[in-house]
Amino acid sequence: MAAKFSVNDKVLVETKGSKYEGIVMPTLEGQEDVLIIKLASGYNLGIKLTKEVSVKHVGKAEKGKQPSIKPPFRKNLPSISIITTGGTITSKVDYSTGGVSPLIKPEEVFLATPELLDIVNIKKIVQPFAIWSEDMTSAEWQVIAKEVAKELNDPEVSGVMVTHGTDFLHYTASALSFILKGLNKPVAIVGGQRSSDRGSFDGGMNLICAAHYLKSNIAEVAVVMHGSTQDNFCYAIRGTNVRKMHTSRRDAFRPINELPLAKILPDGRIERMNKILNLRSDKGKVEADVKFEPKIALIKYFPGADPAILEYFMEKKYKGLIIEAAGLGQVSTNEKQKTVWTPTLKKLIKAGVFVGFTPQTIYGRIDPFVYSAGRILNEAGVCYLGNMLSETAYTKLGWVLAHSKNLEETKKLMLTNMAGELIEQILPKAFSD
Amino acid sequence: MAAKFSVNDKVLVETKGSKYEGIVMPTLEGQEDVLIIKLASGYNLGIKLTKEVSVKHVGKAEKGKQPSIKPPFRKNLPSISIITTGGTITSKVDYSTGGVSPLIKPEEVFLATPELLDIVNIKKIVQPFAIWSEDMTSAEWQVIAKEVAKELNDPEVSGVMVTHGTDFLHYTASALSFILKGLNKPVAIVGGQRSSDRGSFDGGMNLICAAHYLKSNIAEVAVVMHGSTQDNFCYAIRGTNVRKMHTSRRDAFRPINELPLAKILPDGRIERMNKILNLRSDKGKVEADVKFEPKIALIKYFPGADPAILEYFMEKKYKGLIIEAAGLGQVSTNEKQKTVWTPTLKKLIKAGVFVGFTPQTIYGRIDPFVYSAGRILNEAGVCYLGNMLSETAYTKLGWVLAHSKNLEETKKLMLTNMAGELIEQILPKAFSD
Repeated sequence: MAAKFSVNDKVLVETKGSKYEGIVMPTLEGQEDVLIIKLASGYNLGIKLTKEVSVKHVGKAEKGKQPSIKPPFRKNLPSISIITTGGTITSKVDYSTGGVSPLIKPEEVFLATPELLDIVNIKKIVQPFAIWSEDMTSAEWQVIAKEVAKELNDPEVSGVMVTHGTDFLHYTASALSFILKGLNKPVAIVGGQRSSDRGSFDGGMNLICAAHYLKSNIAEVAVVMHGSTQDNFCYAIRGTNVRKMHTSRRDAFRPINELPLAKILPDGRIERMNKILNLRSDKGKVEADVKFEPKIALIKYFPGADPAILEYFMEKKYKGLIIEAAGLGQVSTNEKQKTVWTPTLKKLIKAGVFVGFTPQTIYGRIDPFVYSAGRILNEAGVCYLGNMLSETAYTKLGWVLAHSKNLEETKKLMLTNMAGELIEQILPKAFSD
Repeated sequence: MAAKFSVNDKVLVETKGSKYEGIVMPTLEGQEDVLIIKLASGYNLGIKLTKEVSVKHVGKAEKGKQPSIKPPFRKNLPSISIITTGGTITSKVDYSTGGVSPLIKPEEVFLATPELLDIVNIKKIVQPFAIWSEDMTSAEWQVIAKEVAKELNDPEVSGVMVTHGTDFLHYTASALSFILKGLNKPVAIVGGQRSSDRGSFDGGMNLICAAHYLKSNIAEVAVVMHGSTQDNFCYAIRGTNVRKMHTSRRDAFRPINELPLAKILPDGRIERMNKILNLRSDKGKVEADVKFEPKIALIKYFPGADPAILEYFMEKKYKGLIIEAAGLGQVSTNEKQKTVWTPTLKKLIKAGVFVGFTPQTIYGRIDPFVYSAGRILNEAGVCYLGNMLSETAYTKLGWVLAHSKNLEETKKLMLTNMAGELIEQILPKAFSD
């Protein structure tokens, strides 16, 4: 199959559907069967040397030409659209600073994952912007949601993939869950913890599993990322109950308080794990109901926190606050302490500011009826958001405030399940032993 | 052994060392071998009917007298001291409101766990105050630390137990870890997720395991709580790397980024799980170095967060901020976004305010050298706190600011390992698969 070649040789690699020319790089330890070539574009491409791959020696290292990127169209495959928004999955190491910078051409990432083209046709790649996820605001969520809805409403499109920076990917996933109404096809949010020019690139399997997810009957916004540290499967996790729980691991994304929607193997097998699922249908149209109130904040309560911070938000005309409360939903109600929060909370709520509590513990459900402090806070008008993740409560509040006329309606909507964010029964196995 | 008795009978129960008189209550399903009696004080006491327990029928329900609480002294057992501070472990259901309220007499909780007296002698019970943990401030940490140091320096005392509300128990554990200098004996922080008058009271096993921990050679401040949902073992978890990760489960406390110090069985067996341990010694004295700067805050960064909040803290003369950053340690550095944080952060740091970043993901380690944003923030003077938990960084910052002369010294001290809070190597098994 493969010609003899060594580092720095210029080779032509042919796989089932594509040809790549590049310079042979050193292989990675333990992965000697993966040929890594540096393309003329500067990116590295890893190719597993299987029977279907042929490698021809064409010369020694020299300046080459960028290969053309023309994904083939295969009649028997469903089509998807891809919205790229930036992040590590579409980035490379900037060798001048040593840091990682965004790619300019989003399609270049797919060069590193040619298998994608054996699973789906890529009908369209849309790049509304390319930023890191920590730079996102609700304005970007609105743009992404509009693009996603537009593509979903194309009858030829089976589902839409959004590639995204991982850090705040879960915020975007929950925001899309509330903004997209009448969802009838799958939406996969995908990121990578390693850039595409590294041998340890994890985005490839995520893209492959996401493509399989988009062929499935699960019409939910899901984060599709590694389910373990091995490259053996991904989980599709509901966009409202997912959180990045590790700074750097491939399997950093975890479902909170429920099981993943499905386990997805790179070979396309999908094992459903959760009965609460919205299924694909060809009825209706997806609407991006993008109205969003950005004057909201997320506050973490801590011991000794001065309640004066609440007055700051009131003076600045914030419309609503999500407060990560202690334990089952407490902040200080002890009037002997200078830092008691109750009087200031009452003032805010009286002034019409929505105040919602979420669990600082991340897992579990808050409940105002266990401790006297909870009862006092509940009576003061604090809205107890049950199991809702702080991040999800934040994006939901932005959406709800833009769609409600008064505080009572806001509270009612916040406590109405819209996208699986309020869980009736938390299974014990949704928390690791 | 036991006389025949039924619900509402008045009985006299004798165990190895104690006598209790009370009214027989219905047994709990599946726990028919545990006799529950309501004491004259109103609290329920559960007694496992073993061979050593005798029950005498003395009449029918009527108003009885409160039994005297005199724990026996046993020469062959080591002694401990207990500091009770409030919380569910020393509370009971307030039947007027249905909520849980603190007990008045701390020793009453030990009536529900008479086994404790077979493990250690209780030399002293100190109750400096009784509050819920969400009402605590650094002032209470200082009081607790002084009491702990005083008891530890009693040569007859093997170790000190602190009973505490669970919600913010981990803050107090980390605060004590920094305040107590020259620690040469074990300190156990213990709470309960269910009040002591409930059949599901979990504090009993926690107290028992904590008593065993205080007999061990591990001279660390540790949280000793259920290691599973069963009543089969506890973990002793280092006070600086522990977090309440569930609102209500018995095993809510989890070690973050390292293994527990030890697994403790209720029968006294202790299995060490972590090599990084400070051991018991009879040298020196423990000092409570309680100076603490309370003008600090913990901020959670979120998408679209307005950097103006930073100026608020500067105007209010805050000395330092801990910011839970995205992913590997990012906030918005994108100058095209209105919500870019870099210029305001630079202003704060220039004005002498300490700014430390911690991982919002909870698990893992932040690192300024992976992304260009991290490099920019690092150059702006942000202090990257590695794996340090936000909660731990907050208590450490309060201690460090009270012990440092300038911003450079603060940064240096924050990056110096003091109580195991900076972990050199994070083991893969410290994150659940």
